[in-house]
Parts: sequence; C-alpha cells; structure tokens
Amino acid sequence: MKKIGDNFSFIDFGPFEKMDQISFKHPKLTEEVPGKQFLKDELGLTSMEVSLNKFLAGTSMPFSHKHRENEELYIFLKGKGEFCVDGEWFEVQEGSVIKVAPNGVRTWRSSSSEELLYIVIQAKAGTLEGSSIQDGIPVKG
Amino acid sequence: MKKIGDNFSFIDFGPFEKMDQISFKHPKLTEEVPGKQFLKDELGLTSMEVSLNKFLAGTSMPFSHKHRENEELYIFLKGKGEFCVDGEWFEVQEGSVIKVAPNGVRTWRSSSSEELLYIVIQAKAGTLEGSSIQDGIPVKG
Repeated sequence: MKKIGDNFSFIDFGPFEKMDQISFKHPKLTEEVPGKQFLKDELGLTSMEVSLNKFLAGTSMPFSHKHRENEELYIFLKGKGEFCVDGEWFEVQEGSVIKVAPNGVRTWRSSSSEELLYIVIQAKAGTLEGSSIQDGIPVKG
Repeated sequence: MKKIGDNFSFIDFGPFEKMDQISFKHPKLTEEVPGKQFLKDELGLTSMEVSLNKFLAGTSMPFSHKHRENEELYIFLKGKGEFCVDGEWFEVQEGSVIKVAPNGVRTWRSSSSEELLYIVIQAKAGTLEGSSIQDGIPVKG
C-alpha cells in the first residue's frame, strides 16, 4: 500500500513483527542483513534516514560504528536487549530511547530469549533551528 | 531511568501504553495536551525533534498545521486511525509511515474504537548530506 501526493508519501509496511522478512545488502558486508527496512529512499525524505528493525533473539550487530556528521536516535519498541556506547552497556526495552552523538562508538544486541524491535533515526547534528512549536503553523479548516 | 555519557543520553520512558499519563502544555492552546512526550530537550538532540504519542480512542487533533522549514515523518505503532494531508484522508495502523513536506497541511485522529500509538519526527528539510552507509564508520573491537 503506497500513496504519493504533492506534499506527502505514505507507505504501509505492515506489522513490525514481519520486518525480519525484509533483507538489506550492506555494501561493506558480504552477507545480507535481515530485519532492516530503510525509509529515506522509499519516502523521499530529505532531512533524515530512518530504519525499522527487527532482531531475532540472540542477534548481535556484527560490528560497532560511529558517524561522521549525523547524530542518531534509537527508539526501542518491543523485546529486550542491550546497547553499548563507548564501552558502557545498558539494558533496553519498550520505551527506551538513546541519543548518540556522531563520535559515540555504538553497538547492540537482542537478549538470548527475546526478539528486539526498534527504530533508528539519523540526521545531521546541529541542523535543527526551530523546534516543533516555533516551526509549526496552525491552519484553520 | 536516565543515563548521560560524553556521547549519549539514555532514558527509559516505560511502555508506550502509559504515554497518555504524560501531559504537555502547548503555548498556543489553553488546555493541556495529554499523551505527548517530546524528546529533544530531554536527550539534548540537535538535529531533530521527536515525540512519543498516544491518542485515546475517538481523539482528533484540534487543528491542522503545516511547517515553515521542517519535514515530518509519522510512524504508527499500534491501533487504528486516519491521517489527512491537503484534504486527502487515508487509514493508518501499525507499520504505516508518512512523510509530510513542510507545506503539507496535516491533521489526524484515532478511530472511535481503538487508541493510536505513534511517533512524530521533524528535521529541517534538505539538510541530510550523507545517508546511513556513507556517514557510518565501522569501528573494530
């Protein structure tokens, strides 16, 4: 299900539980990465890259990474896991949110018994000028 | 639960179901808005404003709005509702994602029988330079 208008793009990807059926070919890895749906190219986003993600139980990111210019926000939706920044680990679950500055070295994993559903958003650090309220314009009708 | 490091901020807000217990005072409205937790100031985000949201069944946004410079992404997590851009309505549910350009006039509502959980992200249109893969740097260890 997809709809495109002058000012919007709408896609219905279906339940997050099914995200592990989607695979992604990371250009720096030999194998396909299951459970990751990127949104930028699908929706024509110009300010952020976003991915919807599912890790089956007992899955670890195969590497740590940092960023050149983008900060990231991780929002955990379901399940249990652990997240690490600069060597410090903490537990994550539904409602856990983590901002990581570009230079933070991050990795994460699902628990051995529970899958992990999460969203990752990245945008260029320092670019937000007006926040929600200042940038918004109410429209009558 | 909150942890702050040199390169990260971590908060655990708990289950999304409880978001309606959080209220937000919109400076342009007289009454408090329930069910909205903004993240930018809480986490020190510099590239995006993000909110975690819960609409009880039968709730409508009290106005339409557009933006000056920021594009928005809506990610629906649970429940049923309807979303409108520029007068065109469509149904939303878990896995529905909608990008709205700054000039799109948007509003939304939950269905009369089901609550609606969703995330809203806004960032300045046109600011993303390198996407996920180009901006990321794998780190050994």
